[in-house]
Formats: sequence, structure tokens, C-alpha cells
Amino acid sequence: MRIALDGMGGDFAPKEAVHGAVLAVKEYGVHVTITGPMEKIQEELDQYDYDKSRIDVLDAREVITLNESPVMAIRRKKDSSLRKAMDLVKEGKADAVVSAGSTGAILAGGLLVVGRIKGVDRAALGALMPGKNGHFMVIDLGANADVKPQNLVEFAKMGTVYFKALKDTSNPKVGLINIGAEEEKGNELTKAAYGLLKEEESINFIGNVEPRDITSGDVEILVCDGFTGNVVLKMYEGVVKNLMSMIKEAMMSTTKGKIGGLLVKPSLKEFMLKNDYKEEGGAVLLGVDGIVVKAHGTSDARAFKNAVRQAKSFYDRKYLEHFKENLK
Amino acid sequence: MRIALDGMGGDFAPKEAVHGAVLAVKEYGVHVTITGPMEKIQEELDQYDYDKSRIDVLDAREVITLNESPVMAIRRKKDSSLRKAMDLVKEGKADAVVSAGSTGAILAGGLLVVGRIKGVDRAALGALMPGKNGHFMVIDLGANADVKPQNLVEFAKMGTVYFKALKDTSNPKVGLINIGAEEEKGNELTKAAYGLLKEEESINFIGNVEPRDITSGDVEILVCDGFTGNVVLKMYEGVVKNLMSMIKEAMMSTTKGKIGGLLVKPSLKEFMLKNDYKEEGGAVLLGVDGIVVKAHGTSDARAFKNAVRQAKSFYDRKYLEHFKENLK
Repeated sequence: MRIALDGMGGDFAPKEAVHGAVLAVKEYGVHVTITGPMEKIQEELDQYDYDKSRIDVLDAREVITLNESPVMAIRRKKDSSLRKAMDLVKEGKADAVVSAGSTGAILAGGLLVVGRIKGVDRAALGALMPGKNGHFMVIDLGANADVKPQNLVEFAKMGTVYFKALKDTSNPKVGLINIGAEEEKGNELTKAAYGLLKEEESINFIGNVEPRDITSGDVEILVCDGFTGNVVLKMYEGVVKNLMSMIKEAMMSTTKGKIGGLLVKPSLKEFMLKNDYKEEGGAVLLGVDGIVVKAHGTSDARAFKNAVRQAKSFYDRKYLEHFKENLK
Repeated sequence: MRIALDGMGGDFAPKEAVHGAVLAVKEYGVHVTITGPMEKIQEELDQYDYDKSRIDVLDAREVITLNESPVMAIRRKKDSSLRKAMDLVKEGKADAVVSAGSTGAILAGGLLVVGRIKGVDRAALGALMPGKNGHFMVIDLGANADVKPQNLVEFAKMGTVYFKALKDTSNPKVGLINIGAEEEKGNELTKAAYGLLKEEESINFIGNVEPRDITSGDVEILVCDGFTGNVVLKMYEGVVKNLMSMIKEAMMSTTKGKIGGLLVKPSLKEFMLKNDYKEEGGAVLLGVDGIVVKAHGTSDARAFKNAVRQAKSFYDRKYLEHFKENLK
């Protein structure tokens, strides 16, 4: 399998991206083309021992920053690392693109370069997250801040295929993120979407899911507009981070707590690792005609490696083919 | 100060509400009128030793359930515990109402019985929550699922007065909950609201706040539509609950962890207490012409007591008078 990796995406580019590519090549036997300034990327690569036939660099002199219009940037910066990685997929020279660049630019690249799948109205971001009783997936995580009710049905259908491609679940449950359990609860969007979701026969819709139940993981696929999904994602990240640091502080405030803290450290570490989004890879742009994985902006080498693993599992499981088959 | 307490609101009514009233009377020296079926309330009261001159019961034979239209219920069930508690405030026979009933019914009661303050377009729910570096307040927590951009400015103004009334902060920071830090990020609502908030001189607007930063508590007042606010609130609750139970499980999985767990238990307990929403009291319905505190549906006696404390601090600090003064 051939991966196009945006060497300049993310907060720690190109260092972590390049290191991630080296790890991925070793572990998954894929081929990676890293896009970015040739000498910079090569300088990073030179620090590692790797199979030279499995990594090459495609020179790209421009970088898309967070402060520019994503659509304009993708259109005009034809020599940017992200655009060139997208081009490789479009031209059939790569099977998937992985980038830790800005959500907006990846969305624009997915839509304008890779292209939407015929019959899909809106592409959306979905990602697996670790929950108490299993993994769950929220879609849309932020590609579409404003949506129409019927878009949520499309998200549910895309999410169902996605989930089946990643996990061996035959009939994943779909829930609508809402502020009440009853059908008539919610805002204009969720009230209208509820009826449409209920009628859709190709999904296993189980009704509204209140945000306090999302992270239990009892419902596999959770649909919402991209604004709400992004709030859910970032609340999850923020609360976990703040809570863990507050718990550590609380432990460190007494001698008994300090000793106990040392003893529970290995369990907590294992727990943190199990619940680290970096283990999951990234979010996937669903609805575009190619495998596009958006790694977290703060991705380290391990997170990049896992994003490649995720792209590979989509590829191996023929996710796109299933997806298109299902749309018919 | 005279409190009207809805004796039949909440999951553990009337037991916990009555017990909470007894605790509040002892600790704060307030007078409480409990509304509900006379004999049921009295039966609960008989279990406690309390100053009989400080608690009385107002007979109310009806109960508003979660399954009925809040507006219809408030209008028609004139003999319900919630309606009668609201009536006491309206008639000037109580200074505040406390209820753990449904959000919808309390909102309807606040608007239809107590009444909106002249000049306020939308009443909204706000509540203090414990954050890493201090308390923060989200408004609206769910009274208005759909709002117009200018409503968020009103929420910001109401929140500023509210925060000043509860905490000794002269110029609390106001943030707009949004899915990006930059001004141009967000959905149609937040994009339009940003400019309006920036122009409003009576508030200390500091820009967008991403959900991952909400629980740090660095920004005191966070405004959003009621759908988003409710998602934020319930995600916070859900993640904390799931995370704590997962951490406990992780600790219990090894012998070292078990011993360590015993040692850190007191610190964790103190931490949980410090971060328990039950300590904060409840949410306040801002914009109505009376003090209306909505306690959590799962409130126990302590939570009811704290909701009374919150109502009392509004009363003592002349929150309503300041509020109306500020509106001019």
C-alpha cells in the first residue's frame, strides 16, 4: 500500500511526521511518500535507519498555514505539501493521504482535489474514540458547522459503513446526539432529523443519546452537526486533561497520597495509554473518493504511525468499495 | 429570607427535598415553605428535629411530570407543587423559588408565572461549575435550544451581573464557546455573535473559547446557545463520571494498584467533593423577575441545601436590583 504523507502538517512538522513515517514503514510494510521541502525532509530522514525503497520524498516548497482561507490555499498553493499529497491520491499514485494539517485545508483538499463521491451531499469527519464499554464514533467532528436535517442521515449511513470497516460489528447502533432522551426534545435541527433517521432502513437507529452517555461507548455511532461534534470532541479532550492534572495535584497534596500515587502510577499510565486518542490514529474524511486521514494537530511520531495504520485498515478492508456499493 | 421549595421536584422527591429544607433552615436561618401533598411532606418532616417556626407546608395536590408539555402543565396544573412555589414568589410571599423539577417546567413557570424582566428578550439558565483554575459559568445551559446572535450578547450581560453577584470579581471575562480561536471560525450563529459581543461595551469580551479550554476556568463566563450549553454540561458530567470509574477499575486490576488506591482514596474523595456540582447548588434562571434556582434532577439533601444557599447569596447581594439597574 502507498501512503502520501503531508510532511509539513501539524505542530511538530516535519520532525514527528518523518519519524512517524519511519515507524510506519517498519511496522506495517507500507510505502510512504513524504511531501515537503526536499532538503528539510531528507535531513530528518537521515537520522533514521530505514528501508530506503519504502520511503521517498516529493519536493513541495509551499506550506498551508492556519491563517489563510483553506479553499484559496488549496487552489492556489499547488506546490504545498498538503496539495501535493492530495494530488498523489487523485492521480492514483497513492492509496491514501495522511495529514496533521488544519481541518479546513484537509476538508478543502478532500473536496476540491480528491473529490466527493457521486451521490454524497456533504463530506464529514468521523473518528473512533475510546469509551468505557467500547469504542464509539462521532460524525461530524467539524467539517460542517451548519447542516440540514437530511445531512445527519447521510452521516449515519457513512458512519455505519465506516464502523463496519474498522470493527467487526454487523449492525452498529446509531444515536442522535441530543439534549433530551425523548423524540420531541432538541433544537430545530435534531427535531427534524429524528424523524428522518427513524425512517431510514439501512441504519440501526436507536434514538437520542444525551452527551453524558456518549463516552460510555454503548452506542457505536453518534451523529450531529460539525459544531456540536467538535464541541463534544474538544470537551472530551479538555475534561480528561484537566481532570488528570487535578487528580495528580490532589494526590500530591498529602504524604499518603504521594506514596499511593507512586503505587497506582503504572495502572494510571496503562489507563492513559488505552484512552489516548493518539492510539486511535486520526479522523477520517468520509464521503470523498479516496482515503483521507486527518491526524491530530499535536501528533507525535506514534500518532502519525497510528494514522497510517488506520489508513491501511481502511485500504485492506476495502472500505471505499463497500462504501460506494452501499450508496447504490 | 423566605424560600419557596418545590417539594415534589427531582428524582428523590419529596424525601431529599424535605431533608434539604431542614438542613438549610438550620444552617442559613432562612424560612422555607415546602409545596406538595400536605400529609406526605409532613410525614417526611416528622422524621427531623427542626425549628417549627421556620418551615411550613403549602398543600399542593398535583405534580408536573417529565412527559407533559411544560407550558400546558404550568398553565393548567394550578395546584401543582411547582406552580404553587412560583405563585408564592409572584405574590411576594417568598423571595426565591428552588426546584429540582424539569428544566422545561421551571423555565415555563419562570416566564409565565414569575415573568420576564422588562427589556429582556430571552431568559436563560446559567450555573457555576468548578474548573481547574477557578469557577466558570456557562450560559445558556438549555433554556433556549435555538437562539439569535443578539441573544448571546444578552446572555453575556446577564452572566456578567450574575457572576459579580456570586463572586467578588469586578470585571469577569466573557468568552464565546466556539470551535476555533479565530474570529472567522464557527457556525452562522457564532460568526454573527462574535462581532456583536466585540462591540458591547458593558462586558469584558475576550474572544472565542474552544471547548477544551472551558474547564480550565480561566474565562469566567462562557456564552452559547442552549443546545451547545447543555452538551457542554452533560459532557462534563459524563466524562468525569466515566473517567473516575475507569480509573478505579484500572487501579483495582493490580495488587500494587489496590494498595495505592487505598492510600490515594482520601485525596480523591476530597477532590470529588470539591468538584461535585452538588456543592454548587443549581442553575439559575436569569432574566426573570425573581430568584429562580433549578437544582439538579438527582439532587440529594445536600444539593437542595446548597441550592438554597445559592438563592440566599443572590438575595443578600441584591442580585435582582443590580440586574435591573444594569439593564437601564
